[in-house]
Amino acid sequence: MDRSKLEELLKAIASGAVSPQDGLESIKNLPYQDIGFANLDSHRGLRQGMPEVVFCPGKSSAQIVEIMRTLYANHDLLLATRATAEVAAEVRAELPGVVYREQARALTLGDIPEADKSLPAVNIICAGTADVPVAEEAALLLETCAVPFTRLYDVGVAGIHRLLDRLPELRRNHITIVIAGMDGALPSVVGGLLEGPVIAVPTSIGYGTSFQGIAPLLTMLNSCAAGLTVVNIDNGFGAAVAAVRVVSLARTRV
Amino acid sequence: MDRSKLEELLKAIASGAVSPQDGLESIKNLPYQDIGFANLDSHRGLRQGMPEVVFCPGKSSAQIVEIMRTLYANHDLLLATRATAEVAAEVRAELPGVVYREQARALTLGDIPEADKSLPAVNIICAGTADVPVAEEAALLLETCAVPFTRLYDVGVAGIHRLLDRLPELRRNHITIVIAGMDGALPSVVGGLLEGPVIAVPTSIGYGTSFQGIAPLLTMLNSCAAGLTVVNIDNGFGAAVAAVRVVSLARTRV
Amino acid sequence: MDRSKLEELLKAIASGAVSPQDGLESIKNLPYQDIGFANLDSHRGLRQGMPEVVFCPGKSSAQIVEIMRTLYANHDLLLATRATAEVAAEVRAELPGVVYREQARALTLGDIPEADKSLPAVNIICAGTADVPVAEEAALLLETCAVPFTRLYDVGVAGIHRLLDRLPELRRNHITIVIAGMDGALPSVVGGLLEGPVIAVPTSIGYGTSFQGIAPLLTMLNSCAAGLTVVNIDNGFGAAVAAVRVVSLARTRV
Amino acid sequence: MDRSKLEELLKAIASGAVSPQDGLESIKNLPYQDIGFANLDSHRGLRQGMPEVVFCPGKSSAQIVEIMRTLYANHDLLLATRATAEVAAEVRAELPGVVYREQARALTLGDIPEADKSLPAVNIICAGTADVPVAEEAALLLETCAVPFTRLYDVGVAGIHRLLDRLPELRRNHITIVIAGMDGALPSVVGGLLEGPVIAVPTSIGYGTSFQGIAPLLTMLNSCAAGLTVVNIDNGFGAAVAAVRVVSLARTRV
Amino acid sequence: MDRSKLEELLKAIASGAVSPQDGLESIKNLPYQDIGFANLDSHRGLRQGMPEVVFCPGKSSAQIVEIMRTLYANHDLLLATRATAEVAAEVRAELPGVVYREQARALTLGDIPEADKSLPAVNIICAGTADVPVAEEAALLLETCAVPFTRLYDVGVAGIHRLLDRLPELRRNHITIVIAGMDGALPSVVGGLLEGPVIAVPTSIGYGTSFQGIAPLLTMLNSCAAGLTVVNIDNGFGAAVAAVRVVSLARTRV
Amino acid sequence: MDRSKLEELLKAIASGAVSPQDGLESIKNLPYQDIGFANLDSHRGLRQGMPEVVFCPGKSSAQIVEIMRTLYANHDLLLATRATAEVAAEVRAELPGVVYREQARALTLGDIPEADKSLPAVNIICAGTADVPVAEEAALLLETCAVPFTRLYDVGVAGIHRLLDRLPELRRNHITIVIAGMDGALPSVVGGLLEGPVIAVPTSIGYGTSFQGIAPLLTMLNSCAAGLTVVNIDNGFGAAVAAVRVVSLARTRV
Amino acid sequence: MDRSKLEELLKAIASGAVSPQDGLESIKNLPYQDIGFANLDSHRGLRQGMPEVVFCPGKSSAQIVEIMRTLYANHDLLLATRATAEVAAEVRAELPGVVYREQARALTLGDIPEADKSLPAVNIICAGTADVPVAEEAALLLETCAVPFTRLYDVGVAGIHRLLDRLPELRRNHITIVIAGMDGALPSVVGGLLEGPVIAVPTSIGYGTSFQGIAPLLTMLNSCAAGLTVVNIDNGFGAAVAAVRVVSLARTRV
Amino acid sequence: MDRSKLEELLKAIASGAVSPQDGLESIKNLPYQDIGFANLDSHRGLRQGMPEVVFCPGKSSAQIVEIMRTLYANHDLLLATRATAEVAAEVRAELPGVVYREQARALTLGDIPEADKSLPAVNIICAGTADVPVAEEAALLLETCAVPFTRLYDVGVAGIHRLLDRLPELRRNHITIVIAGMDGALPSVVGGLLEGPVIAVPTSIGYGTSFQGIAPLLTMLNSCAAGLTVVNIDNGFGAAVAAVRVVSLARTRV
Repeated sequence: MDRSKLEELLKAIASGAVSPQDGLESIKNLPYQDIGFANLDSHRGLRQGMPEVVFCPGKSSAQIVEIMRTLYANHDLLLATRATAEVAAEVRAELPGVVYREQARALTLGDIPEADKSLPAVNIICAGTADVPVAEEAALLLETCAVPFTRLYDVGVAGIHRLLDRLPELRRNHITIVIAGMDGALPSVVGGLLEGPVIAVPTSIGYGTSFQGIAPLLTMLNSCAAGLTVVNIDNGFGAAVAAVRVVSLARTRV
Repeated sequence: MDRSKLEELLKAIASGAVSPQDGLESIKNLPYQDIGFANLDSHRGLRQGMPEVVFCPGKSSAQIVEIMRTLYANHDLLLATRATAEVAAEVRAELPGVVYREQARALTLGDIPEADKSLPAVNIICAGTADVPVAEEAALLLETCAVPFTRLYDVGVAGIHRLLDRLPELRRNHITIVIAGMDGALPSVVGGLLEGPVIAVPTSIGYGTSFQGIAPLLTMLNSCAAGLTVVNIDNGFGAAVAAVRVVSLARTRV
Repeated sequence: MDRSKLEELLKAIASGAVSPQDGLESIKNLPYQDIGFANLDSHRGLRQGMPEVVFCPGKSSAQIVEIMRTLYANHDLLLATRATAEVAAEVRAELPGVVYREQARALTLGDIPEADKSLPAVNIICAGTADVPVAEEAALLLETCAVPFTRLYDVGVAGIHRLLDRLPELRRNHITIVIAGMDGALPSVVGGLLEGPVIAVPTSIGYGTSFQGIAPLLTMLNSCAAGLTVVNIDNGFGAAVAAVRVVSLARTRV
Repeated sequence: MDRSKLEELLKAIASGAVSPQDGLESIKNLPYQDIGFANLDSHRGLRQGMPEVVFCPGKSSAQIVEIMRTLYANHDLLLATRATAEVAAEVRAELPGVVYREQARALTLGDIPEADKSLPAVNIICAGTADVPVAEEAALLLETCAVPFTRLYDVGVAGIHRLLDRLPELRRNHITIVIAGMDGALPSVVGGLLEGPVIAVPTSIGYGTSFQGIAPLLTMLNSCAAGLTVVNIDNGFGAAVAAVRVVSLARTRV
Repeated sequence: MDRSKLEELLKAIASGAVSPQDGLESIKNLPYQDIGFANLDSHRGLRQGMPEVVFCPGKSSAQIVEIMRTLYANHDLLLATRATAEVAAEVRAELPGVVYREQARALTLGDIPEADKSLPAVNIICAGTADVPVAEEAALLLETCAVPFTRLYDVGVAGIHRLLDRLPELRRNHITIVIAGMDGALPSVVGGLLEGPVIAVPTSIGYGTSFQGIAPLLTMLNSCAAGLTVVNIDNGFGAAVAAVRVVSLARTRV
Repeated sequence: MDRSKLEELLKAIASGAVSPQDGLESIKNLPYQDIGFANLDSHRGLRQGMPEVVFCPGKSSAQIVEIMRTLYANHDLLLATRATAEVAAEVRAELPGVVYREQARALTLGDIPEADKSLPAVNIICAGTADVPVAEEAALLLETCAVPFTRLYDVGVAGIHRLLDRLPELRRNHITIVIAGMDGALPSVVGGLLEGPVIAVPTSIGYGTSFQGIAPLLTMLNSCAAGLTVVNIDNGFGAAVAAVRVVSLARTRV
Repeated sequence: MDRSKLEELLKAIASGAVSPQDGLESIKNLPYQDIGFANLDSHRGLRQGMPEVVFCPGKSSAQIVEIMRTLYANHDLLLATRATAEVAAEVRAELPGVVYREQARALTLGDIPEADKSLPAVNIICAGTADVPVAEEAALLLETCAVPFTRLYDVGVAGIHRLLDRLPELRRNHITIVIAGMDGALPSVVGGLLEGPVIAVPTSIGYGTSFQGIAPLLTMLNSCAAGLTVVNIDNGFGAAVAAVRVVSLARTRV
Repeated sequence: MDRSKLEELLKAIASGAVSPQDGLESIKNLPYQDIGFANLDSHRGLRQGMPEVVFCPGKSSAQIVEIMRTLYANHDLLLATRATAEVAAEVRAELPGVVYREQARALTLGDIPEADKSLPAVNIICAGTADVPVAEEAALLLETCAVPFTRLYDVGVAGIHRLLDRLPELRRNHITIVIAGMDGALPSVVGGLLEGPVIAVPTSIGYGTSFQGIAPLLTMLNSCAAGLTVVNIDNGFGAAVAAVRVVSLARTRV
C-alpha cells in the first residue's frame, strides 16, 4: 500500500482541502487498486506492452464479437486464441478489421508492433511439423509483445544434426521455448546445450500411450537437464507469456 | 504335428508290430509333446544354453532353497533373481555352493560359461549410477548364456559426449540394451544412432512425476526413434532374454 | 569417428595436395556425418533397404503431397502411414503414381521390391479380425524392406488350435510379431511356444476397461513368457521396424 | 415376505389368541426380517452353512478378540481373514481355541466340517507360487462351508502342459477359481477350456507395470474367453464366496 | 481325452476294419478335439445350446455378412452384438433373414428357441433406463440359450422400494445379473438381499467422474456384499454368458 | 467493507478529533481486516465458536509444541489433528495440559464446551469399525464447537437394518456426515432416506481396487442420491467443518 | 415406523372392526411406506417444494416425452436437465407447454414459483464465461424450488477484485455455490472469505492436463480452506440440490 | 563450430607449424568440444558460478563419498541433495569438511560465496510449514550460486493477507519461486500479482486425493494466471536452477 499517498490524502482531509466525502471515495477503492486492480488486470494484460487476450473455446462467436468490440474501445491490440476457421469467419463477418492467423489458430485486431531489437530474443524450437500450430501460437503472442524471436521447426531426434548445426545461432538468443509431442525428449537435449531459460511445451501429438500429451509432459517434468520448466499441454500461449515474463526483467533493468 | 511319425506308428499297429495298447500310450502323450512340452519348458529355460531361473520375491528363503536344490539335480546352472542380501545369506547357509552377485541382486549356482565370441555381442548402456542394478541383472543373464557384452554406464543426457565418444565401439556390437529412469530419453538418442535391435528398459529411478518408472516407460513407448522395443519397468532380466532371443537367430543361421 | 580417413585428409593438407580451404569444407561437416547425419537419417530410413516414411496424422494433404514430392526426388520408394481414404484420394489426385493400400491404411510411391528369400522371415500373427489393419501396416513395411513374412490372422484364445496347427510352419520363421487387443494374452502364449524374438503390439481394439489398448499393453509388459518386447499401442509400423532391426543383424553377419 | 405367517398371526390377534401388544412386538420387526434381517445377516454368513467372518486389517488385536468372543457365543465356526502372524499370536494368547492357518493368513475358531461330497466341487488353480496365499484363503473358506475342492498350483503359461495334462480331472469339477498376477493370462486359457463358471482373481504379485494387480485385473476383465467373472485384487475370500453362491443353487435344487 | 474312443479306433485299425489312412485322418484332429477343439469352440458356442456370436465393432458390414453367411451354413442360430442401426440395415439388405433387435443393439439369424422352464432362471435388474441396452443384450443372449429370465428395470437407489416390493419374486430365480452406471451401488444392495450368484455389470452411463464406467466398476469390485463377481463395462453379453455357465451346472447335474 | 465505520473515522479526522497519524494507523490495517484478516483468520477459526487447529503431519513435535504454546496465549481451545501416539507423548511432555484423544488421533488444549442444544444436531454415521478414527475426528471437532451430534457406527450394507431401525432418530437431526470406505455405497442409501444436508467422507479403508479411497470417493461423487457433497479421503475434520458451516446458518438466523 | 398407526390398526383387528384380510393388505405395504416410499420419492423430489427431474442423456426424445407426460399428470412442475437444442425441439413438438431454458440446457413444464424471500439465499459464483451453463443449471433448479439467489459470474483469479468488491453483498447470502474449471482455485479463495456452507463444482472447462475437470476437482478436494464440499464435475444440478438440502434446514426450523 | 579456430589450425598444418599427428589429436576432440562437451558439462555445472551437484537417492554413502572426493579435486564447491541424516553422518565421517544443511536435506563441501547484490533477486514463497524443506533446497542452491533471495514462508490461502502485506517488497525482486502442496492454489494468486517469471513447485504435502503432489501439479499446470511455469513435484532444486537460468540472462546482458 502506498503509505505516503494515503498520508497525504489524510492530511488534506485534516486541513479541509479534501472533504471527508471525497476522501471516502478515494479511499474506498484503494484496497483494490493496491492489492490488485492494476496487477490483476496485468494478469491478463501484464503491462501495456501485452495485448488483451480472449480464449475462444466455450464461447459463441457472438460472445467473442461482443467481448472483442468492448475491449477494443480501450485497447490497441487484441488477440483471440484457439479460434477455428468457422469461428474466424463468423467473427470477421461482424468485425471486418479482425485478421485470422490460420497457422496460429488465432485472431488479431489492431496493429502488431515492430519487434523491439533491444529486448532479449527467444528461440522457438519444435520437434515435428504437427507441433507447428502450438509453435505459431507462441510466435504470435511474442509478435504482439514486440519480442524478437527465431523459429527452428522440425528438429526432432531424427533431425538433431540440424539442431546442432544451428547451435551458435541458438546461443545468440537468451530464452528458448521447446515444443514436442510423442516422447518429448527434445527439451532434455536442448536444455543440456543451452544456458538460459528453457520453457518446455508438451503437445498432444502422438497416439496410443502418448495419452494426448501426458507422455511428453512427464518426460519434460522428469528431464535430466536441470532447470527446465514446463507448461500445460499444447499451451504455446502460456510458454510465450512465460518468456515475456523473463523479458520483463530485461525491460525493468534497462 | 509330425504327420510322418504318426503315420508310421499307425502302420505298425495295422501290421501288428505294435499292439493297440502300446500305441495308445504313445499317442496319448503326443498332443502335449507336440504342442509344447519341450517348448513350454523352454519358456523358462529356452534351450540348453540358458539357465533355469527362479524369481525370488514372494517366495520364502526355504522355498527358494528347495526349488534350487530340486532344479540343480537336472541343471548345470541356476539363476535366482531379485534376491535381497538377507535372502542371499539364508540361501547360502543351506546351499553353500550358491554365489551372491550383489550388484545384480541375484544368486547363481553352478559354473558360468565362458563368453562365446562367435555370438553377436550386446551393448548394455545405462543412464545413471542408480540404474546399475538393473543393468547388472541383464549382464548376469547374458553371462550365464555365454553371450558377450560391453558395459557403458552413466551416460545420461549430461554425459552424451561420452556416448558419442564410444560410438564406433558401440557399433561393433549388434544388439543394444538401454536402461534409463527419470525422463527415459536416452533410448531415443541411442535408437537414432544405432541400426541393430535396441531394447529399452525403463527404471523406477526418479521421484514425483516419474511415478516409479511410468514416465520413462511412456517416453520409450513413444520414442521418435522407430523400432525401439520396450520391456517392463526395472526388467533387466527380460531385456537380456529378449537379446538372447535375437542371438538365437544367429545360432540358428550359423 | 573415421580416424584413418581424417588422418589421410590432414596428410593431404600437410603435403599441399588439398588446400586448407577445401579441407575446411570437408572437415566442417564431419562431426555431423560422423555422429549422426547418416545414422540419424537412417533413424527414418535406417539403411538403403528401407523406404522413407511419412506419418500422415496432423499433416494436411497438401503438406503430405509436398513432402512426398520432395523426398521422391532422392528416394526410390516412399511409404506414408495412417492415411485415411480421404487423404489418399487427395494425395493421389496430385501424385497419380501413389498407390493406396487400404487395409494397411498407407500410401506407397515407387516400386516395392521382391522379397529377399535369403533374409530371416517374420511371422505376423494377430488375434482378431479387427486387429488386421495394424497387422497389414506391419506387413507393408516388411514388404517395402524386402523382408519375407507369413500372415496368421484371427487366432485369438478362441482359435488357439489353429495356432497350434501351424506351429511347425511358425517355427520355420525366425522373428514373430504378435498383435492383440482386449486381454492381450496371445503374445504370452506365442512367447512360450517360440524361441526367437517376439515383438508384441497391443491394439486399441476392445471397449470399457481395455482403455483403448492400455489393458493389452499392460498384459504384454507383464508377460509370464520371458523376453517379450513391446511397442506402442497400434504401432504395427514400429513392430515391423523392430523386426527389420533384427534382420539387419543377419544382413551384417552374412 | 412370509405372507402365510403374517396371515396366521393376524388371525390369532383377531381370535384373541395373541394380544395386540404382543402382535405389535412381532410385527414391529417384520419389515427387517422381511426385507433383510436374515438375508443381510446372510450377507456375512449367507446361510447356516457358512461361518461368520471377521476382516482383520484396521482392527486391533483386542478388537478382534472381543468380536470373536462375542460372535462365538452364537456361532459354531468363525473365520478371521488377513491376520498377520503378530495378530494371530496376540489373539491366540487370549483365545487359545483359535487356530492360525498360516498359508491362508487366517484364524479359525470352532470345528471345520467334513467336505460334503454331494455338493458341486471347485477347482482352485493358481499361476505362481507367490499366489498361493490368495488361493489358500479361498480354499479355507470353501473348507469352512463343506464345499469340496481340488488344488492345482503353479500352472502359469510356462507350465500350461501341466494344466492340459489334468484337464479331464478339472472337468470333473463344476466351478473353477483361477488366480493369477503379472499378465493375468491364465483365466483366459482356462475359460476357453472349461464350460462351467470361472471366477478370476487378480493378485498383486508382479512389479513395475503390474501396478499391484491392475494389469491382471484388466486382462481378466477384457478376457477373450466369454463369461469369465472377476473379483477384487487378492480377494481369494470373495472368489470362494462367489463359488459358494453357485453351490447354493445346487443345494436349492436338490 | 476320450480314451475309450481312441482305443476303439486303434483296435479297428489293428483289425483292419479301418485303414491306416482313414485312421490318420481321424487321429490328426484328435489333439485339438482333445485339448480344445470342442471346448474352444464352446468358448464361443459353449455348447450346442448356445449360438455362434459375432462381435460387430471393427468389422465392416461386408465382413459381418460374410462371416454370418459362412457360419449359418453350419449353425441354426447366430447372434451379432453391438450392431448400429446402419450396420443392421446394410446386413439385412444382404441377408434378409436377419432380424435387428434394436433395444439389444444386436442381430439374430435363425429361430430363437422357447425358454426351457426346467433350467434355473435369471433376474436381470438394471438401475436406470439408460442401462437398458446393456440389459437387453444380456436378455437376448439368454433367450438364444433358452434360459428363462425376469426383467426388473429402473430400480436405482431412488426406486429401491420397487426392488424390495419384488423381493419374493426375485428370490424365486437363482441367478441375478445387476446392471448399473453412475455410483454402481445397486449390486451391493442386491448382493446383500439374495443368496445365489450375483453378476454385476458396470455401465458407461454417467458423466464427469464416472469416467465412462470406472466409478461403478470400482464400486462393484469393492462391494461390501461378499461374493459379487464383475464383468467388463457395458458387457451385458459377458454377464449373460457367465449366467449360462452357472446354468450349465444345473444341466450337468440333472 | 464497513463504510459507515470508515466514514465516521474520516469525519473525526476532519474535525481534529483524531490526528492524521492515528487515522493512518487505523486505516492501514483496514484492507486486511476488511477483505480478509478476520475472515481469513476465520478460515481456520471460522468464528469465536471454533478452535484454532494445527495439522500435525510434516511438523516436528517441537514445532507443534511451539505453535500450540503461541496460539494458546490468545485462544481458549486448541485442536491438533492427525497426531500419532508418539507425537502425542512428546507434545504432552512439554505441554502437560494437552489431552490425547486416541480414537480421534488428536490433541486438545483447553476446555471443551458443553454441547449447545439449541443448535441443529449432526448424525455421524460410519460403515465399518475401521472407519471409526475418521468418524471420531469429525466428532471431536463438533465437540469443540459445541455442536450436538449422534454416533451411528458400523452400519454398512451388511447391517442396513440397523440403519433403518434408527431412521426416526436420524431424522431428528438436521445434518448428516456419512463415512465409508470400500464400495462407498452407504451415503447413496442415506442420501435417499434423509432430507437435510448429507456430507460424504470416503476413507482409505479397503484393499486392491479401493486404491486408498479412490473407489468410495468416485462412488460418492457419482451418487444416484442427488445433492450429496463430498470431502477429501479420510477428511473427517473437513466434513465436520462443513457441518459447522451449515450450523452457522442456524446461528445467524436465530 | 409409525408405531401408533400400527397399534391402532391391530386394535381394530382385535376388535373385529377390521378383518384380518383387510389388515393384511394394509400391513403388507407398510414396510415400504415406513422405510422409504415417501423419502425415496423425495430422493428425486425431496419434498413438495422441489420439481420432478428427468436426466435426458441416454434417453430418446420419445422416452423423455413419455416420462414427462406421465409425471405431469401428478406434478405441477417438471425439470429435464442436459437437454440439447435438438432434444428440446423434438420434445416441444410433442409437448408444446414445455419451455427450453437454453443457457441452462434444460426443459421445464409447469409454472416456476416466485422466489420465497423468507428462505436463506444462495450465491452462485463462477470463474469463467464457459462455466455459465453449469451455473445456470444450478440457478434453474433453485428457481424451481423458490430459493432466492444472486449470480456473480466471470470472477476468476484475473478478476478477483470484482469478487472482493462485492463481498458485503455476498455475505448477505448464507449459502454459496462456486463453479470453476481449469485450476479450480476460486473456491479456495471464496471459502476463506465466507463463513457459511460453500459447495464447489468443478467443470470440464480447460484443456490438456485439466483432464475434463479432474484438475479442478482435485484442487477443490484438497482445498486449504476447511469445510468446502464438492460435487461431481459439471454437476450444477447436484450443487443446487445440496443447497436446497441446507435450505430445508431453515424451513424445518422456522 | 568455431570456424576461425579450425581454419587457423589447418593453415598451421599446411605451413608445417603443426604436424598432421598433433593436428589429428586436436581435431579429434573438436566435435565434442564443438557440439557439446563444454555445454553438456554446463548441464550440471551450467557455468563457473554454479556448483557440481550430486543427487543422493539410489547411491550408497560410499559412492557419494567417492564421487564428492573425485569432484572436489577440480571444483571449489559441491552440493549433494536429498541426503538423509544417516547418509550425512556417514559421508561426514569420511569427508569431515562436508557440512549438513538439515533443513535443505543437503550436503555442501567448499565455501559458499557471498550473495552478489548486482544480480536479480528471487522470492521464495511457500504455502505451509511442511513445504519448507523444498523451499530450503531451492534457497541453498541459490546461495551456492551467489544469487540473492528473500524467504516468505507459510502464506497459504489462510494467510493471504500476509502475502498482500509484503507485496511491495516482493515486487522489488524479479523472479519468484512459489512452493505449495494440497490444492496448489498459491501460485495462481501470486502469478496474478507479480509481473516477472514465476516458477511453481508442487509438493507431495497433503493426503488422500493430493496423490503425493499430483493435485497441486495439475492446479499449477492449469493456472488461470498466464505464464506460470512448473517443475517436478518437490523439485526445489530444479526451480532454483530455472531461476539461475533467468539470472544468467542478467549476467550476460550486463
